[in-house]
Amino acid sequence: MKNKSLNVSTFIGCENSYKEAEVVLFGVPFDGTTSFRPGTRFAMQHIRPDSYGLETYSPYLDKDLEDTSIFDGGDLELPFGNTGRVIEQIFEYSQEVLQDGKKFLMVGGEHLVSLPTIKAAHEKYPELHVIHIDAHTDLREDYLGEKLSHASVIRRSHDFLGDGRIFQFGIRSGLKEEFDWAKEHTYLERFSLYTLKEKIGELKDVPVYITMDLDVLDPGIFPGTGTPEPGGITYRELLEAIQQMQALNQIVAADVVELSPAYDPSGASTAMACKTIRELLLTLVK
Amino acid sequence: MKNKSLNVSTFIGCENSYKEAEVVLFGVPFDGTTSFRPGTRFAMQHIRPDSYGLETYSPYLDKDLEDTSIFDGGDLELPFGNTGRVIEQIFEYSQEVLQDGKKFLMVGGEHLVSLPTIKAAHEKYPELHVIHIDAHTDLREDYLGEKLSHASVIRRSHDFLGDGRIFQFGIRSGLKEEFDWAKEHTYLERFSLYTLKEKIGELKDVPVYITMDLDVLDPGIFPGTGTPEPGGITYRELLEAIQQMQALNQIVAADVVELSPAYDPSGASTAMACKTIRELLLTLVK
Amino acid sequence: MKNKSLNVSTFIGCENSYKEAEVVLFGVPFDGTTSFRPGTRFAMQHIRPDSYGLETYSPYLDKDLEDTSIFDGGDLELPFGNTGRVIEQIFEYSQEVLQDGKKFLMVGGEHLVSLPTIKAAHEKYPELHVIHIDAHTDLREDYLGEKLSHASVIRRSHDFLGDGRIFQFGIRSGLKEEFDWAKEHTYLERFSLYTLKEKIGELKDVPVYITMDLDVLDPGIFPGTGTPEPGGITYRELLEAIQQMQALNQIVAADVVELSPAYDPSGASTAMACKTIRELLLTLVK
Amino acid sequence: MKNKSLNVSTFIGCENSYKEAEVVLFGVPFDGTTSFRPGTRFAMQHIRPDSYGLETYSPYLDKDLEDTSIFDGGDLELPFGNTGRVIEQIFEYSQEVLQDGKKFLMVGGEHLVSLPTIKAAHEKYPELHVIHIDAHTDLREDYLGEKLSHASVIRRSHDFLGDGRIFQFGIRSGLKEEFDWAKEHTYLERFSLYTLKEKIGELKDVPVYITMDLDVLDPGIFPGTGTPEPGGITYRELLEAIQQMQALNQIVAADVVELSPAYDPSGASTAMACKTIRELLLTLVK
Amino acid sequence: MKNKSLNVSTFIGCENSYKEAEVVLFGVPFDGTTSFRPGTRFAMQHIRPDSYGLETYSPYLDKDLEDTSIFDGGDLELPFGNTGRVIEQIFEYSQEVLQDGKKFLMVGGEHLVSLPTIKAAHEKYPELHVIHIDAHTDLREDYLGEKLSHASVIRRSHDFLGDGRIFQFGIRSGLKEEFDWAKEHTYLERFSLYTLKEKIGELKDVPVYITMDLDVLDPGIFPGTGTPEPGGITYRELLEAIQQMQALNQIVAADVVELSPAYDPSGASTAMACKTIRELLLTLVK
Amino acid sequence: MKNKSLNVSTFIGCENSYKEAEVVLFGVPFDGTTSFRPGTRFAMQHIRPDSYGLETYSPYLDKDLEDTSIFDGGDLELPFGNTGRVIEQIFEYSQEVLQDGKKFLMVGGEHLVSLPTIKAAHEKYPELHVIHIDAHTDLREDYLGEKLSHASVIRRSHDFLGDGRIFQFGIRSGLKEEFDWAKEHTYLERFSLYTLKEKIGELKDVPVYITMDLDVLDPGIFPGTGTPEPGGITYRELLEAIQQMQALNQIVAADVVELSPAYDPSGASTAMACKTIRELLLTLVK
Repeated sequence: MKNKSLNVSTFIGCENSYKEAEVVLFGVPFDGTTSFRPGTRFAMQHIRPDSYGLETYSPYLDKDLEDTSIFDGGDLELPFGNTGRVIEQIFEYSQEVLQDGKKFLMVGGEHLVSLPTIKAAHEKYPELHVIHIDAHTDLREDYLGEKLSHASVIRRSHDFLGDGRIFQFGIRSGLKEEFDWAKEHTYLERFSLYTLKEKIGELKDVPVYITMDLDVLDPGIFPGTGTPEPGGITYRELLEAIQQMQALNQIVAADVVELSPAYDPSGASTAMACKTIRELLLTLVK
Repeated sequence: MKNKSLNVSTFIGCENSYKEAEVVLFGVPFDGTTSFRPGTRFAMQHIRPDSYGLETYSPYLDKDLEDTSIFDGGDLELPFGNTGRVIEQIFEYSQEVLQDGKKFLMVGGEHLVSLPTIKAAHEKYPELHVIHIDAHTDLREDYLGEKLSHASVIRRSHDFLGDGRIFQFGIRSGLKEEFDWAKEHTYLERFSLYTLKEKIGELKDVPVYITMDLDVLDPGIFPGTGTPEPGGITYRELLEAIQQMQALNQIVAADVVELSPAYDPSGASTAMACKTIRELLLTLVK
Repeated sequence: MKNKSLNVSTFIGCENSYKEAEVVLFGVPFDGTTSFRPGTRFAMQHIRPDSYGLETYSPYLDKDLEDTSIFDGGDLELPFGNTGRVIEQIFEYSQEVLQDGKKFLMVGGEHLVSLPTIKAAHEKYPELHVIHIDAHTDLREDYLGEKLSHASVIRRSHDFLGDGRIFQFGIRSGLKEEFDWAKEHTYLERFSLYTLKEKIGELKDVPVYITMDLDVLDPGIFPGTGTPEPGGITYRELLEAIQQMQALNQIVAADVVELSPAYDPSGASTAMACKTIRELLLTLVK
Repeated sequence: MKNKSLNVSTFIGCENSYKEAEVVLFGVPFDGTTSFRPGTRFAMQHIRPDSYGLETYSPYLDKDLEDTSIFDGGDLELPFGNTGRVIEQIFEYSQEVLQDGKKFLMVGGEHLVSLPTIKAAHEKYPELHVIHIDAHTDLREDYLGEKLSHASVIRRSHDFLGDGRIFQFGIRSGLKEEFDWAKEHTYLERFSLYTLKEKIGELKDVPVYITMDLDVLDPGIFPGTGTPEPGGITYRELLEAIQQMQALNQIVAADVVELSPAYDPSGASTAMACKTIRELLLTLVK
Repeated sequence: MKNKSLNVSTFIGCENSYKEAEVVLFGVPFDGTTSFRPGTRFAMQHIRPDSYGLETYSPYLDKDLEDTSIFDGGDLELPFGNTGRVIEQIFEYSQEVLQDGKKFLMVGGEHLVSLPTIKAAHEKYPELHVIHIDAHTDLREDYLGEKLSHASVIRRSHDFLGDGRIFQFGIRSGLKEEFDWAKEHTYLERFSLYTLKEKIGELKDVPVYITMDLDVLDPGIFPGTGTPEPGGITYRELLEAIQQMQALNQIVAADVVELSPAYDPSGASTAMACKTIRELLLTLVK
Repeated sequence: MKNKSLNVSTFIGCENSYKEAEVVLFGVPFDGTTSFRPGTRFAMQHIRPDSYGLETYSPYLDKDLEDTSIFDGGDLELPFGNTGRVIEQIFEYSQEVLQDGKKFLMVGGEHLVSLPTIKAAHEKYPELHVIHIDAHTDLREDYLGEKLSHASVIRRSHDFLGDGRIFQFGIRSGLKEEFDWAKEHTYLERFSLYTLKEKIGELKDVPVYITMDLDVLDPGIFPGTGTPEPGGITYRELLEAIQQMQALNQIVAADVVELSPAYDPSGASTAMACKTIRELLLTLVK
């Protein structure tokens, strides 16, 4: 008789155990520094059930989640109202996964949660390079005095990564200072992803971390975000970007952040997050 | 380290194993005969996460889910598009739970799913009486020629229960024929629950099954239903009804049906379903 | 073969021809003077299809629409942006229906559309009395200089009805001047319908017109309105009022106005409008 | 006096009688095999009134619905909960229309309802070819054991059409087996419509049936669907496809399926369905 | 010519200057410790424009905002992500208003923002008593380790107010420990406001602060809250409570918290907040 | 102490005084002639607060609102229900701004409100040319007999501008007569903006007024409109158009009309309006 073990809920096709898994998927339901419109804490709550509207097979990559070994670790339980401790805990979890010889795909939450996962990846792979796909520069020195903010996450990552390691695409919003600062410290393509393919060629054999802020998509097609910034890319452009990433030989981890499902009750934005996660999972496995 | 076992998702406070459980909670995500507006198949998908907005403690009953032993068996996986087989499968699951000496609380889905659970309870307890709280009579001989319909579930139950066993409250919609039929075969209070207390006195020591169609609530306060029938009861009246049910000494099973969460994105209707489930679970345990 | 005549769409159970009908139902999709939030023009577009979620039988009145003879005349096509001509056209239609020896139930639209229907009824029945159920006094001499406004409809009706003919119930919003004016010219019960029964006793044998602004209902249960005024009555109180109206021997016409369906996508408010219309239709037929 | 005949409701510009009509428009409000999120049964209920937001003139085709002769036959009334009988009834209606020397445009409902309409067209035109525009392969042998499913509709059509008759475009989701099967039995373009023009050249003079599943559109722009599959085409690409179809000399019938209006309360998705219907109607008339 | 000064936006009827004002209205858009569903930070952004849907005259109190002297100070600009400093700043503003000999009505935001306003009132009026109307006890010693939480605001207030000063009404949710603790330290009526009138009699001549958490209302009628707790009071009961408060001779300040407008796009919940604010403002002025 | 002056609410970065301002921004909340779905009267109510989700810096134009001098004059208060007087009042305001040597950006409201602003600009600059970006021709001689209608605004402007002065882009809906009329009296590009750049070259040194109806955008990405017309342009195409407008040396005024925020609760459409306004303001300043 079925249904005699406790109710288990995972992303579609991610039912392997931690031990056997090559890739670990986990959620970080945190949006504590969101200034404008919170809600990304609910992303995974919608992503898991809605992932069953997808097939496990990707005709883009001709790969199937059913042929992989992925563990869905659920969501981290985070200490309430203490940003520093939240970051620490995400760091510890990511670090342990990497130490166990696995890759991970983290799903936010707001973009600040990428700071500890990038840091954990950098600690294990000192040559780490970061591909950052986003509408926003995220390069502020601080946001209203706060150094740990979603608007500073890439600047804070630069603190330990240093120059020449960060590659930004799709950026269409920021302070003038941020765009100026980027000229000296990162590679930054404004508005589009046209040079991604070329840069992937350069990063082919180094360890790479991919951080994907879904608000890079145009809010007209992806309204499920707290920070709608018109003029973004189409979903087909995003799919094409992921196909290009197949040329990277050493992706060590990735994240998908900033889905805020309440702003799109149709579920279309959540479906885009789901498909992005499926494609990135299939990219992470070898 | 946490999060190394697969992601488990239960109703709040229902984390016991099947073996140790006194009561089994399970979902039946079926709305295949719904004629007007489908959507009850999604009820449990919203109820489980939203139940964490409640406390486990009920100040109404002065009981706490944390002091009970309840297993959340997840949702039945039902064969697609085959009403007969769906009913069979629900029957088998319910029967097994009862045979293992446990009680159950089933959560729909549309009201038709109560037919096999009432049947299983009747099989084990031939003296079974049913308390039916609903906006609709559900006494049609058939609905557009179909005998297995949400509009016929109580009539079909009468087929095996017989006269004098069914007690209906809150009924405010049906065909004239149904109201006329009820006069001879069931006890039926129109519009309200005023005589519930008195009838509970009569049913004090017999085996009782409670079937609760949430559309008994006024759609003004409970819009999360596919069949809004204005003029219903308030949620405080429903809570009072559950408090009165504490006088029943032999409740053997119960169900809560017809939440259609998409019609109430505010979550208020889902919260009412959650609280009703908590109170009924605390009523089922001794 | 079915479906070879053009697609016909009526309120449930109102499929008689004009000629044979005792009562005419028609819609007036006009909200041109609405100041705050427009949308009542769409009421009938939602009411007709949603009426099929109801039964034709009313257990409250023990009557069935199937036993009546009602014609659904569709919606008036109104000249765009010309309030004066709109009112004229509604007047002509109502007048003709009354001259043909029929009663009518008009469905708005905003409350101003009751002015020409009351006027037509008054012309035919000079002894006309009006029962006005509403959240608002609607007694302004003018609204921002405009004499033909939803906020003035009862004051404009008083222009030809005179003192002692208007009975207002449920009123909970207005200018101080309006409440003061009412003391001398109308009967006005604030906040509730407690004295309705007594007044119905007085109006038992005179010709009566019933104008029902649905915003008399509390916006908590009836959010489908452009003018939410908290503190209103429950739907059960409204149903009870209609039951009391059975004692009136000479209801000549009635209206139901101010449903704005877009503000309540759940359909609960529309369901309340539908049920109110069914009960009033069953009240109008003899 | 107007409004003395029963209220008639048609798609804009489709007010001809059955007898005089060259093309018959009809709705099939069925979504009984929908597994993920039902709701397409409500499509026509939104399409008819919203069609009045369009003009009857198409600047794309330089044709006007006012110059055509189209009958809107309303929606089929379908036996409840009996998929086999539903299919039979759609078949009979379609067959009769074709036998009367007319073309039709059917509007779903879920995609399964295209099976009997394609079958009726094939019976009359044994050389029938099908142009299938969709996000999904719909080529499953069965879906959870059920052979009559929205996910099998093209496979079931192949049962009688045979190889070389089905041309699929825009497909971006399916099982690996389905894509493999298609290689031998249908023409299938993945992700886009780039080869449509070329294939239309080949099909210029044979009888053609067009089945258009609106979920081929990207859910970012067309969220009104139960099965959002990101990465779809734009609406301008769809318009261009219809313009290309003007080169077909023998379109005998067509359908537009899978609008689920509740998922897009803005009405934008319904507007896309309306415009698609207008363009296809203008394509069907000569 | 109008419109040559900058655009000013206030609550209806609150256009006096700070200097001349007897009462100061101000907003605190903070929801940083909200655990379940954030959004109360947007309350005032909806309340100000929607207040123009109300009249300035209250027929309940027979008073008019136009006859009062109230200043709308806008919203505090709060330092981002620093709960301690937020509380300090609210305290300073409240303190200054009281020192200037004025009363205030503060509008949240989450309930934690009442802590500094109660503290400021207590500092000026050491005999301060608090009337607390809420669904929740808010008496936790801490919430997930955090002492400054919306779930602890009344417990924290007790830290300086001490026993016998807090009167709680409508409470229907909390931990068993909280209800037990309340027995010794506060006056607490469960579920309803029946004893409010009697307690007001006792508090007639002492300084009183009123803190009103709108989630005391049933979520069925007030879905605009992040913490729906079914079984609450009706809006008419809340209005009656405010009428009873007219007997208090020394209300020194008040607050209205926890409206989360995004959960009720109909605006009905916001309308309830607006009317509550109007009635409380008219209560605060003498 | 802050917050002692009345609460001021402006578009982001527009806090200069009227006197010092080079450009005046003002709102016209009028939708009185809207036939299909009203709601544009609420545009500015959403635009002002949501503008704070943007940065003041535009990476497209490399300009910053902080470096400009713009006055936000709030919304005009319009006489209720009197289209003629509304138009007069908008004309007077626009005239005065121009006479004071300033430019303006007006935000609607429905498109009819552009008539008086174009007229005021034409009076001051008799050589005025108009760039009209829209989905609709707006060239009707009258609409249901009404000459002052949103569907006639460009035709009415032609009455005083004459031939050769109006340049229309993106047009995809209208009567056949309108398209025919345009051939002789205006320049009209159907469906797209491909020739805009060329025409801007021709208009380089003449006075130009830009009227931007946001429904030119595809309703799939911009559902916040009362008149969804599928097949529109993308937001990136609109941004590109504004960048091309930098080549115009004499833009004297502009408007942005037809945002109807209620149809897009996600805020994405409002964000597009905000960004369009920012870019146009930065275009208007020199």
